[in-house]
Amino acid sequence: MRFLTAGESHGKELTVILEGLPSGLPLLAADVDGQLARRQLGVGRGARQKIESDRVEFTAGVRLGETTGGPVCMRIPNKDWKSWTEIMAAEPSDEPPGRPLTLPRPGHADLAGCLKHGLHDGRNILERSSARETAARVAAGAAARRLLAAFGVEIASCVLSVGSVRAAERPAFENCLGLDPELPMPGEAEAEEARRLILEARKAGDTLGGSTLVIVRGLLPGLGSHAHWDRRLDGRLGQALLSIPSAKAVEIGDAMEASTKPGSEMLDPIGYEEGAGFTRPSNRMGGLEGGITNGEELRLVTIHKPVPTLIRPLPSTHLGTKEAGKAHKERSDSCVVVPGAVVAEAMAALVLAAAYGEKFGGDSLAEMKRNWEGYRKQLEAF
Amino acid sequence: MRFLTAGESHGKELTVILEGLPSGLPLLAADVDGQLARRQLGVGRGARQKIESDRVEFTAGVRLGETTGGPVCMRIPNKDWKSWTEIMAAEPSDEPPGRPLTLPRPGHADLAGCLKHGLHDGRNILERSSARETAARVAAGAAARRLLAAFGVEIASCVLSVGSVRAAERPAFENCLGLDPELPMPGEAEAEEARRLILEARKAGDTLGGSTLVIVRGLLPGLGSHAHWDRRLDGRLGQALLSIPSAKAVEIGDAMEASTKPGSEMLDPIGYEEGAGFTRPSNRMGGLEGGITNGEELRLVTIHKPVPTLIRPLPSTHLGTKEAGKAHKERSDSCVVVPGAVVAEAMAALVLAAAYGEKFGGDSLAEMKRNWEGYRKQLEAF
Amino acid sequence: MRFLTAGESHGKELTVILEGLPSGLPLLAADVDGQLARRQLGVGRGARQKIESDRVEFTAGVRLGETTGGPVCMRIPNKDWKSWTEIMAAEPSDEPPGRPLTLPRPGHADLAGCLKHGLHDGRNILERSSARETAARVAAGAAARRLLAAFGVEIASCVLSVGSVRAAERPAFENCLGLDPELPMPGEAEAEEARRLILEARKAGDTLGGSTLVIVRGLLPGLGSHAHWDRRLDGRLGQALLSIPSAKAVEIGDAMEASTKPGSEMLDPIGYEEGAGFTRPSNRMGGLEGGITNGEELRLVTIHKPVPTLIRPLPSTHLGTKEAGKAHKERSDSCVVVPGAVVAEAMAALVLAAAYGEKFGGDSLAEMKRNWEGYRKQLEAF
Amino acid sequence: MRFLTAGESHGKELTVILEGLPSGLPLLAADVDGQLARRQLGVGRGARQKIESDRVEFTAGVRLGETTGGPVCMRIPNKDWKSWTEIMAAEPSDEPPGRPLTLPRPGHADLAGCLKHGLHDGRNILERSSARETAARVAAGAAARRLLAAFGVEIASCVLSVGSVRAAERPAFENCLGLDPELPMPGEAEAEEARRLILEARKAGDTLGGSTLVIVRGLLPGLGSHAHWDRRLDGRLGQALLSIPSAKAVEIGDAMEASTKPGSEMLDPIGYEEGAGFTRPSNRMGGLEGGITNGEELRLVTIHKPVPTLIRPLPSTHLGTKEAGKAHKERSDSCVVVPGAVVAEAMAALVLAAAYGEKFGGDSLAEMKRNWEGYRKQLEAF
Repeated sequence: MRFLTAGESHGKELTVILEGLPSGLPLLAADVDGQLARRQLGVGRGARQKIESDRVEFTAGVRLGETTGGPVCMRIPNKDWKSWTEIMAAEPSDEPPGRPLTLPRPGHADLAGCLKHGLHDGRNILERSSARETAARVAAGAAARRLLAAFGVEIASCVLSVGSVRAAERPAFENCLGLDPELPMPGEAEAEEARRLILEARKAGDTLGGSTLVIVRGLLPGLGSHAHWDRRLDGRLGQALLSIPSAKAVEIGDAMEASTKPGSEMLDPIGYEEGAGFTRPSNRMGGLEGGITNGEELRLVTIHKPVPTLIRPLPSTHLGTKEAGKAHKERSDSCVVVPGAVVAEAMAALVLAAAYGEKFGGDSLAEMKRNWEGYRKQLEAF
Repeated sequence: MRFLTAGESHGKELTVILEGLPSGLPLLAADVDGQLARRQLGVGRGARQKIESDRVEFTAGVRLGETTGGPVCMRIPNKDWKSWTEIMAAEPSDEPPGRPLTLPRPGHADLAGCLKHGLHDGRNILERSSARETAARVAAGAAARRLLAAFGVEIASCVLSVGSVRAAERPAFENCLGLDPELPMPGEAEAEEARRLILEARKAGDTLGGSTLVIVRGLLPGLGSHAHWDRRLDGRLGQALLSIPSAKAVEIGDAMEASTKPGSEMLDPIGYEEGAGFTRPSNRMGGLEGGITNGEELRLVTIHKPVPTLIRPLPSTHLGTKEAGKAHKERSDSCVVVPGAVVAEAMAALVLAAAYGEKFGGDSLAEMKRNWEGYRKQLEAF
Repeated sequence: MRFLTAGESHGKELTVILEGLPSGLPLLAADVDGQLARRQLGVGRGARQKIESDRVEFTAGVRLGETTGGPVCMRIPNKDWKSWTEIMAAEPSDEPPGRPLTLPRPGHADLAGCLKHGLHDGRNILERSSARETAARVAAGAAARRLLAAFGVEIASCVLSVGSVRAAERPAFENCLGLDPELPMPGEAEAEEARRLILEARKAGDTLGGSTLVIVRGLLPGLGSHAHWDRRLDGRLGQALLSIPSAKAVEIGDAMEASTKPGSEMLDPIGYEEGAGFTRPSNRMGGLEGGITNGEELRLVTIHKPVPTLIRPLPSTHLGTKEAGKAHKERSDSCVVVPGAVVAEAMAALVLAAAYGEKFGGDSLAEMKRNWEGYRKQLEAF
Repeated sequence: MRFLTAGESHGKELTVILEGLPSGLPLLAADVDGQLARRQLGVGRGARQKIESDRVEFTAGVRLGETTGGPVCMRIPNKDWKSWTEIMAAEPSDEPPGRPLTLPRPGHADLAGCLKHGLHDGRNILERSSARETAARVAAGAAARRLLAAFGVEIASCVLSVGSVRAAERPAFENCLGLDPELPMPGEAEAEEARRLILEARKAGDTLGGSTLVIVRGLLPGLGSHAHWDRRLDGRLGQALLSIPSAKAVEIGDAMEASTKPGSEMLDPIGYEEGAGFTRPSNRMGGLEGGITNGEELRLVTIHKPVPTLIRPLPSTHLGTKEAGKAHKERSDSCVVVPGAVVAEAMAALVLAAAYGEKFGGDSLAEMKRNWEGYRKQLEAF
């Protein structure tokens, strides 16, 4: 399974082509739209989220409600596009390019991208490095989670911290389900405090980061591989999560705590229960041992930096004149931890769906399920 | 650039084939042996490190002290092999397999690998998932860092924490250089305490984890790309580091701290200085913005779990009888944070060398350097 | 450089995402439309070509007439779509699927695809395996040839044979340029005879194949590599050409003839001329030696099978009842050798553009050209 | 499944790492040595083949006669190495490099490789582009065919032509089996004439090419895919075969003939027989339709150029002085069509084994076979 996304933040639309899904998988626009809507929620989001109400259109690979086995193509129009048709036109123009970005934003790709491409106007860099692109990933991820659902795999997430406030605990899967989608943080007091901090930051023209937890339930043991470094699931999930624009760190299980205590306390003993098979009284390893799923919940923490586009912008330098100035402002969010969790779910889903594809092969969902069923029986008889 | 490693922990040897180096790169066995020796150091290492004294042999791709442009093949004999020739023989045998692993070690690939492959003896899993394989990565990484050195790129590392003791600060590049290679941790008192903790753990038959910092200096801005998720260097470095057997988390720059404070404090303003070009008064982003190097030091923290092979082993379950028992013991280390830093350097070097290859193309070192020189001038004239 | 195509033959549109082009490359819809139009020409084409008049729309990666460095997304609407909206709808329907394909066409993916996916209606297979998809490849190829043009590389092609009639000779590059685009075959008499054969076949409800020659001029020596099998350009070009639906054989240079004569006659001696550098009095190797371009014209012959959709259909078997019948009819062409040459040009362009990217690196066209210029000087000074 | 080869023609040894085989596959050195021996046969081979008697050593991935699931590493020592230790040493030397290649051989990578790498001595190019490297591919292919054998897939080959003499017919699988391994060409008179031509060429210091046919029997329908160009098996097999140093053309089935006749005669009608399922009275498509296996014999023709190293060498030009001279001589063969068939078998086996891996997934041979068995039943019930 592989996918390519395309699209600029203020271009006509985002597009994603997802290649490698089996045929016969039920897939509806509503499946995707539901995830796109989740990505638009969150305390501290900017005005743009109201304009958008993202809706997907399938233009390939889905027919009569099921995948065909061909590449799935999804388009997500940018509702904002109508105000940008000239600035973002594909055709050449005699006018100078509109709305140039000349004062790069710290924390963004602006400066590094301009140096890389030899540009004194960072508009092209901003347009592609914008987190708007993550809508295309969420769309692809929605198809991936539809596949995973066919194998009993469920994904949930929550917010673990916003700025200086932390959730009282790292919740279990079930405890993520009833949380407020605008700020799905365990602990009422903590959630309330987080909300307050975000609104305060917004009022101050400032931004906040935080951390999120993705939990995946129902994964069979044996996905991924210890046999070669680039087949290990820890690395592959790590790449997927660290490629999220806001992400700057990834933690599997309780790695931070585990690194501070002796092995005798922080590794998860192996028990056994008739009927249930092998049991683990704890899950500090977060569901991965040796790069392979071990049948426990997969638990992935992503740490997000504060949004780099500030209303009260940071000091910057003009790309052309080299004079000091204030960084470019662009309509933006004060905190993206809430949508960050949704994007993290999507990226995890894409990696895991690929791992299911590798382990179970098959061209149709029926074939893939038959192989999966065989493996389940193998596990039961182990 | 790509590489494949092969070899079992107690097999005859490790092998790595590294494909894609330019021709004309000076490369000596001593370059590799120096890195292999660093990997064998560290307070808390087991007896095996004394047996080994790893030495590389080039069997392909290097001639008369320079790369040929063909795949480089490196062999690292396992000195221990002579005691394992029967157990690890390639040929079939009438005897039952020697030294089976029937009590899987928590934290290791043993149980997940056996379930995956349908095995009641985890010897084959242990042999490949063992951290011994990282010697092959370090060898490949030594060639990669030789390439980077030709472009003025230097790599250093240190230990940031061991168990509950943390370094007083996250040091600058220079401050990593004079540290004690057996425990390269900033702060004399902290290093002493860390040493004590490790020896105490060893005596108790227990193990410790910790964290390490890799710093890369001399990277040009513009490596990696914001244009597609899987070309971002943050993700690619994250995969490389999280694929290290002991690694369970990765942090870029000061991500943990940055996630707790407002953007106005944690992003790195953009200044300018005649002659020096763009300047950054701080480097909380760790040298990466938008998935691209920004010309600052690259700073990568890896968090390592405690070693999962304990002399006083954890509860486990027999793979065949399902009876409770104590996990398998295998000669091992009490703490691998010191070699973990060396392996992290190697993995970072491999990703960065590939990024240099992508940005500068070229078949010979001379061609690659000419292209690099052209880009340097482009940056100077920006 | 990589690309994914999506789209069904009677779906709403074709889409292609092309990732990896440098920024700053001039690219107009007209560049693509010109190639799409060439693909629709040819004696013996079916009615559909008149309906279509393919036109591309850029929705990403091109701004103000130049590539941005982000993924380029191109949409090519299917004009025919309006007659198929229900049959090809993405949404589920209570109606049974329209226009099922139950009698698989020999030579097509129909039967193998249905067995693979477990289907008794091959509509989904036909829709994706249809040669309509090659329009997306031609669009991607048009961008690739725009890149190649920036480096002085030109591509032309002609028809070498149609059924039993063969061109009198394999022409030089220049001799391809003035040929009739409806049947670009060297030799007036042969072209006339070929036209007659095609029209005769059409009248008989039959089809014809043939062979085509793609010639690429202006390639620098040194693209591709001998160092590893999968980097050799002969193999990569071979894959690209043999993946064309009609293609069943590929020949590089005069391989067929060369295989029948002694090496002393069929290899190309190496001369030298002051100013011009190394010279080759002949080019039987077709511009590739050891998997590397040698500076001569690249000459690639593709052999095309007769179109498998016949108006007087072949014997087939009903997928459900297993009763004998006549194979499915779908509006089609009698001969696709003419568009086959255009698709072969596109596929060759895509492989070669990727090879330029690998050899010269660079993020912007300016950087890539600077590196290319350096290599050109290296060659001159050799 | 993927593999990397390393090794120079006169280096110490060849190495191949093959990653992705399932665990539990029986694999003996004898399996590989048998194929290596076949590669050394053939009328017209040079003296070197007598020195070598290639033997493989497994150093990783095989234990007690079965694959472990880890990467398989195979070493094939070069018996000739002892005469080349100084010339091919990995260490730097004060002496000038021995046996430089200054007069490039037409048809080889020598000239193009030297231009590419900026070298006036082509020794490094020759050493890696030499067909000696194909021994490593044959070793990898031997493991792949061992996997295929577990699924009832068999591979055979024969010589179709040598220079101007052609086999009377393209034989069926069975008819390849009893042929003389020194010249496995159907038709006694033709084989005799071919032998005479080769010996005559050798006496004249000249070389010959020819063509070979690989036949694969027992493949299930449904391998490969029509869904995306780079998943089609025709293209992937084409790349694999065209990457063989001597190969310059590839034909699938009877493509040459099929391109000259109407579709009504050259496509393979689809019949049905109770018990046997779908039947095809002919197999002009060579077992592939739409890029997918169709259950018929896979038939792949490779066209080989004459060996480019001539004892009476062709005109060449000195790389340094640019003076005219005679091309470099190196001990070589007069005709490599016979080993060429063995290498073609190996390359086909590697592609097909990968396709089995993709279709059936699985980590152990047992799991892979269970999935394959399920698909077989699906086909039977179709």
